[in-house]
Amino acid sequence: MTNDRQLRSILFAAVLLILGACIGFAAVSIQPAVETDRETLFQVSTIDALLQGIYDGSMRFDELASHGDHGIGCGDRLDGELLGIDGRWYLIRVDGRAYPVAGTATTPFAATTFFDPEIEIAVGKPMALTDLENRVRDEFPSENYFYAIRVDGTFSEVVTRSVPAQEKPYPHLALVTANQTVFSLKNVTGTAVGFWSPGLAKGLNVPGYHLHFITTDRNAGGHVLDMTLAEGTIGVDTTKNFSVVLPSSGDFLTVDLTGDLSEDLGRVE
Amino acid sequence: MTNDRQLRSILFAAVLLILGACIGFAAVSIQPAVETDRETLFQVSTIDALLQGIYDGSMRFDELASHGDHGIGCGDRLDGELLGIDGRWYLIRVDGRAYPVAGTATTPFAATTFFDPEIEIAVGKPMALTDLENRVRDEFPSENYFYAIRVDGTFSEVVTRSVPAQEKPYPHLALVTANQTVFSLKNVTGTAVGFWSPGLAKGLNVPGYHLHFITTDRNAGGHVLDMTLAEGTIGVDTTKNFSVVLPSSGDFLTVDLTGDLSEDLGRVE
Repeated sequence: MTNDRQLRSILFAAVLLILGACIGFAAVSIQPAVETDRETLFQVSTIDALLQGIYDGSMRFDELASHGDHGIGCGDRLDGELLGIDGRWYLIRVDGRAYPVAGTATTPFAATTFFDPEIEIAVGKPMALTDLENRVRDEFPSENYFYAIRVDGTFSEVVTRSVPAQEKPYPHLALVTANQTVFSLKNVTGTAVGFWSPGLAKGLNVPGYHLHFITTDRNAGGHVLDMTLAEGTIGVDTTKNFSVVLPSSGDFLTVDLTGDLSEDLGRVE
Repeated sequence: MTNDRQLRSILFAAVLLILGACIGFAAVSIQPAVETDRETLFQVSTIDALLQGIYDGSMRFDELASHGDHGIGCGDRLDGELLGIDGRWYLIRVDGRAYPVAGTATTPFAATTFFDPEIEIAVGKPMALTDLENRVRDEFPSENYFYAIRVDGTFSEVVTRSVPAQEKPYPHLALVTANQTVFSLKNVTGTAVGFWSPGLAKGLNVPGYHLHFITTDRNAGGHVLDMTLAEGTIGVDTTKNFSVVLPSSGDFLTVDLTGDLSEDLGRVE
């Protein structure tokens, strides 16, 4: 009987010890520095590297997705326009169709953040892209921060583009987009997802607006060339910190990133 | 007796539960993503903001120090040249003396990382700054990364400068450095601490080398204008990621960061 009681006591103690450890883990698991990360634009490589043909993927999508639920970029070898919305990631390929990405696939250039809009604008009448951009910019507390942008609604037209996967030796991006495939989506519901980047990000990202689009049924979309919002809502998330992970191997090591490629950028956007 | 035993059992259970929770905490506390952070250059504000007189401190030194043990920058209101070595932070003020910083004081511009050199170079004969810079650059795997640099040794001469605290309205940095105080430290032992930043960081940080100096007795130093190493060792830590925290208030919000200020930068370095 005594042995039984001792055994019961030991088991009881062990259960309590494990339970306590679980409480410890559970309490700590709330603590990671999530607050900062949610307000950070996380970026892979630089736009000036992409402009010069650095198209080999350098980060897995599952790692990218751990840094945000909202984002844009492109696929490995430039195979499609990337869009992340509500934590789901798609590549819109040159056939204009949206494909869910595999976590093990990689991206050569992408930016993401967790989308927590502080500014919301309801749009009740048709608004051209330039008017929408100006309307949103009026809300910015400063033009020196990044802003994550999301436009949900019905669009009378969205003009998008995509590009095909490239083969080595990779041509510069301006040569690829000269042969881009353009789509006109009329009277569609969907979401434009992207960023406004400040001038201080020149060379790293695309200064000004950069939006990709996906339909509500998640079937089609692309890089936004033009759009007219019929009605919908615009959300804006101010993002004051940014973090860049550079490719650790390949052609990135030797590409010349000292120049001013803003003219090249003008040709591809 | 039964009540006593019950009380003892409850106390025993409580102790085990707390002990278990502590084990849980202790196990988790080993887990933060330290590995990535050690290879990240962490930066406050941008050089182009500093060039235009954004001198109000925006981050406390204790927060800065949580992101690195090696770094450079400047004090609030430009009051001194900042140097972080082995996790200890100093401001070298316009009197040429080094003062330990208070954790509650702030910096308007600084960069730091945890210094883990993969490259070490022993120097046994006198080496001028330009030769040292070329020698170190020959070791870089790529000119598109940041490198934390540390030079420990005896120097036949180190020419440094510092600047005084500024009053509002703040003048541009080129006007301040036009009246900088220059020091010549001869036959000193000490350490030059700083970074080599890639061209892709133009506008954010100082492309090329940027070193500050402190004597071994931690009494004097400043921003390095020139130096000749008599003998010593050079350590280099490749840093492929970078993270920028922008000031969240003040004059930063309205300063124009769209231009190319490389000529201004040439005048102050």
